[in-house]
Amino acid sequence: MIVTVTPNPALDVTYEVDALQPGHSHRVARVLERPGGKGVNVARVVRALGGTTAVVAPFGGATGEGMAGALRRDGLAVWPVPVAAETRRTVTVVAGGEATALNEPGRALSGAEWAALEAAAGNALDGAGALVVSGSTPPDTPGDLHQRLIEQARRRGVPVVVDTSGPALLSAAEAAPDLVKPNIDEVRAATGAHDVAVAARMLLERGARRVVVSLGADGIVGFDGPGAHDAWRVAAVPDVAGNPTGAGDAVVAALSVGLIAGVPWPDVLARATALGAAAVLAQAAGEVDLAAYERFLPTLTAERFA
Amino acid sequence: MIVTVTPNPALDVTYEVDALQPGHSHRVARVLERPGGKGVNVARVVRALGGTTAVVAPFGGATGEGMAGALRRDGLAVWPVPVAAETRRTVTVVAGGEATALNEPGRALSGAEWAALEAAAGNALDGAGALVVSGSTPPDTPGDLHQRLIEQARRRGVPVVVDTSGPALLSAAEAAPDLVKPNIDEVRAATGAHDVAVAARMLLERGARRVVVSLGADGIVGFDGPGAHDAWRVAAVPDVAGNPTGAGDAVVAALSVGLIAGVPWPDVLARATALGAAAVLAQAAGEVDLAAYERFLPTLTAERFA
Repeated sequence: MIVTVTPNPALDVTYEVDALQPGHSHRVARVLERPGGKGVNVARVVRALGGTTAVVAPFGGATGEGMAGALRRDGLAVWPVPVAAETRRTVTVVAGGEATALNEPGRALSGAEWAALEAAAGNALDGAGALVVSGSTPPDTPGDLHQRLIEQARRRGVPVVVDTSGPALLSAAEAAPDLVKPNIDEVRAATGAHDVAVAARMLLERGARRVVVSLGADGIVGFDGPGAHDAWRVAAVPDVAGNPTGAGDAVVAALSVGLIAGVPWPDVLARATALGAAAVLAQAAGEVDLAAYERFLPTLTAERFA
Repeated sequence: MIVTVTPNPALDVTYEVDALQPGHSHRVARVLERPGGKGVNVARVVRALGGTTAVVAPFGGATGEGMAGALRRDGLAVWPVPVAAETRRTVTVVAGGEATALNEPGRALSGAEWAALEAAAGNALDGAGALVVSGSTPPDTPGDLHQRLIEQARRRGVPVVVDTSGPALLSAAEAAPDLVKPNIDEVRAATGAHDVAVAARMLLERGARRVVVSLGADGIVGFDGPGAHDAWRVAAVPDVAGNPTGAGDAVVAALSVGLIAGVPWPDVLARATALGAAAVLAQAAGEVDLAAYERFLPTLTAERFA
């Protein structure tokens, strides 16, 4: 069972309009609502792969309650942490294949609410196979949030995968998580290093045991320990067009499942690459095209990354 | 006391962003929420003028409950009609003074819910000074909704003002309301006539006792009975720039208050014009700049409209 913690979930709302014209008024033809947040997407993909998950997240107000209910109806185990602030929304306006996203800022949690989140994660972690902490954090998040969650998992011997950015990524690395997965922009922004190997090494030296960096069209590269001989790259599946939102979450899901199963590191990276591509082909974040995954996987091999 | 019925209310959400770029992702800097709907705006303006109001509207789900609570906190008497469907939202993206509106479609009410709305309006109407039925209607609204509401008011001797569009405007006119107030686009679309006098006469002949058409920069024109000698026009206040959303609702509020008070017809039209301009200067729909109203009013006179 994989526990996902999503510190800053959102209700993802999609508006379909004919054409988005700034300065004009639009009649929305169709409204779709779906619980979102990177950890939530990871949990959905883990479930699609046949795994079990527990979704730990703060849920506030009617929006949060509705989200927890919707996730349960989708078959996910939810450990909701009730908070006072209404859970935020994102609005994506889709017009003729073009998506325009409007992301509400996260809403701050109280000290007691953070403690409750930590306690819920701790309870969910008993007997878990892995902990995934994924996504952004709301304003005024305690600087040691990731460290404390990683520590909870370590005490129980549960491996930890972290997907976040900015100072939280650096702070998380110091608590020696089993894997961190920034994308290339995130690892550059957090470390200040342009070269992916240099940037990844900085995270390894801080304490992360493995670093996987997604490079978009250039595939993914994984660093296992500080030596360059432990670095592998998998080229991207060519000509995959679709919805890239959630592809990184599918990568995290594949990495987590692979780590638990003891799959050899180069194969874990190939699986993650195939699943990320399979997510691009699926309609919504948190979904994967499993038939495409099976097609892609035999075509991919990890190569030494010098 | 003026009863306002809003068949299709909405929670108006405003997102402030730096610049709206279709196809891109935006961090929303500020989120503002405000109960909306044309009848709700009319009630706010009536209250700003010192009048009392009762807001009758269907409210569904947490969004609807939150709206009813917010209206009460703003000092408005609310007669909520609980309905199953979550109350819709509108999202307005404001970037550098430019507003882009995304209006969710209304959600259908059941037959029992329409009956409850009618009953709530009837109860609120006992002892009322006027009924205002304002704004659009959700999908599958009974074709005789406006007629039935007007009939409820007539039984109690309460005058009725209707602000709506399309087939509902034509249907409402047949029930002999005291006043209908379309804008020029609405009256043309509903009647098929381009000329404002011809179009207004069509509504008078259907049964409306008075027709006021707002002409935007050309002011407003009011028709009292079917004779052309009863038509008056008030030129717009020049050089008024701001937020035109809600200006029509301020016009309806002034017309309703003026009718109740027995103000002479040409003066009612002048007051409505001044208050509409005062609404353009105010920040949000439902607000008016009363100081500006007092400045504008002496500068306006109604003239015979040939």
